[in-house]
Amino acid sequence: MKNTHVLYQHGTLALLVPGLLTGTLTLKELMAHGDTGIGTGEGLDGEVVIVDGKPYQFDSFGKANLLKDDFTLPFANSHFADYQKIGSLNDADPAAFEAASLEGKPNCNTFFSILVRGTFSYMKTRAVVKSTKPFDTLATTAKKQSIFEAHDVKGTLLSYYSPMLFHGAAVGGFHNHFVADDLSIGGHILDFRVKQGTLEKQVFDTLEQHFPVNNAEFMDHDFDKDEDIASVIANAE
Amino acid sequence: MKNTHVLYQHGTLALLVPGLLTGTLTLKELMAHGDTGIGTGEGLDGEVVIVDGKPYQFDSFGKANLLKDDFTLPFANSHFADYQKIGSLNDADPAAFEAASLEGKPNCNTFFSILVRGTFSYMKTRAVVKSTKPFDTLATTAKKQSIFEAHDVKGTLLSYYSPMLFHGAAVGGFHNHFVADDLSIGGHILDFRVKQGTLEKQVFDTLEQHFPVNNAEFMDHDFDKDEDIASVIANAE
Repeated sequence: MKNTHVLYQHGTLALLVPGLLTGTLTLKELMAHGDTGIGTGEGLDGEVVIVDGKPYQFDSFGKANLLKDDFTLPFANSHFADYQKIGSLNDADPAAFEAASLEGKPNCNTFFSILVRGTFSYMKTRAVVKSTKPFDTLATTAKKQSIFEAHDVKGTLLSYYSPMLFHGAAVGGFHNHFVADDLSIGGHILDFRVKQGTLEKQVFDTLEQHFPVNNAEFMDHDFDKDEDIASVIANAE
Repeated sequence: MKNTHVLYQHGTLALLVPGLLTGTLTLKELMAHGDTGIGTGEGLDGEVVIVDGKPYQFDSFGKANLLKDDFTLPFANSHFADYQKIGSLNDADPAAFEAASLEGKPNCNTFFSILVRGTFSYMKTRAVVKSTKPFDTLATTAKKQSIFEAHDVKGTLLSYYSPMLFHGAAVGGFHNHFVADDLSIGGHILDFRVKQGTLEKQVFDTLEQHFPVNNAEFMDHDFDKDEDIASVIANAE
């Protein structure tokens, strides 16, 4: 049975920091838990965005690749879409998007997802260059990222909101990926402006957090010695 | 199907801090996710320990009460038991218990549970006095706790280990409850010494974190303004 109140996550944000980038889940396994989601490939191989059951990876060359079942991911999440329209956005920057998504509250204490389908007057994304073993740390890898920009592009912004209590396990606050209708641009969003779009929301009551317990590097890692997650993530964006 | 790799948790440790102590899950719902578990009742009503499918609450009077299906809990976890024996303990203090449970590693990056069945040369537990609405904060409530001690008591220590990354959502590190075979003592363990016992372990690959999304007080609470969890919990123990 498809439970639309559950957000499934494999791996943690924290494991990216020291470079535990082995793909420990297949795309097929990820999509057994949802038709909608985001993630990254082994070695931070691009930015994955799954909308309407179509899994695309935007790589560091700006190319959109339709992913196969055996593509592996170190960190990803998915859920079965059941969004409700809560409003429209017109000429909205990220702050306006976040305020509308939170429906007037300063924050939220459970996980939720947002879809914005429409036209974006501005879109700025990034995709990291894939690294190979031995993997670099996130701070080093993030320096090798490609930046993409587009104007007046139609597409879908897929966002996940995580309560700050879970920052480090997930990405605290909003985490936004994009896919253009014509696949001309996509990936992890750095900045955007919505020209006109619909705002849809889906609230979860459960986080199903799955760990790569069969990966010895993950299980044996001492996370206490890693750099502070907040500073690494802030510098990477 | 009973998935023995999943640890189910309802609520978060963080919601206890400001006193969001409304019972938002019934015991029946909790036990739909496991025959083994720990928790507390509405208003921090005693200490719940479920072993072999038998749900007992140790109240602040030291009495063991077999719980009914409609008992409600603000914070609890459960799982279906499938422990494997990993060793024995003889004259073991908490440090020796933790070292043996971690099997020589400094910490663990996934959740697991431990059972010690045997004779305890010393056992010290606490149970908090139930508060009523409007609920006090955890710091205030924890001052009104009863302490119990026993020597040479047979029983079961039920422990859950949470990776420190999840501290605040769960109780980082070990969280131990006890139930004596003759129900003479039980509750949240403050100190103990194992005389002789078996050490059983069950490792989870998934945390199923459930939030009380239908509780407006929880959903509307601003956790940013709360006291630091670490200091409150340290002072409460």
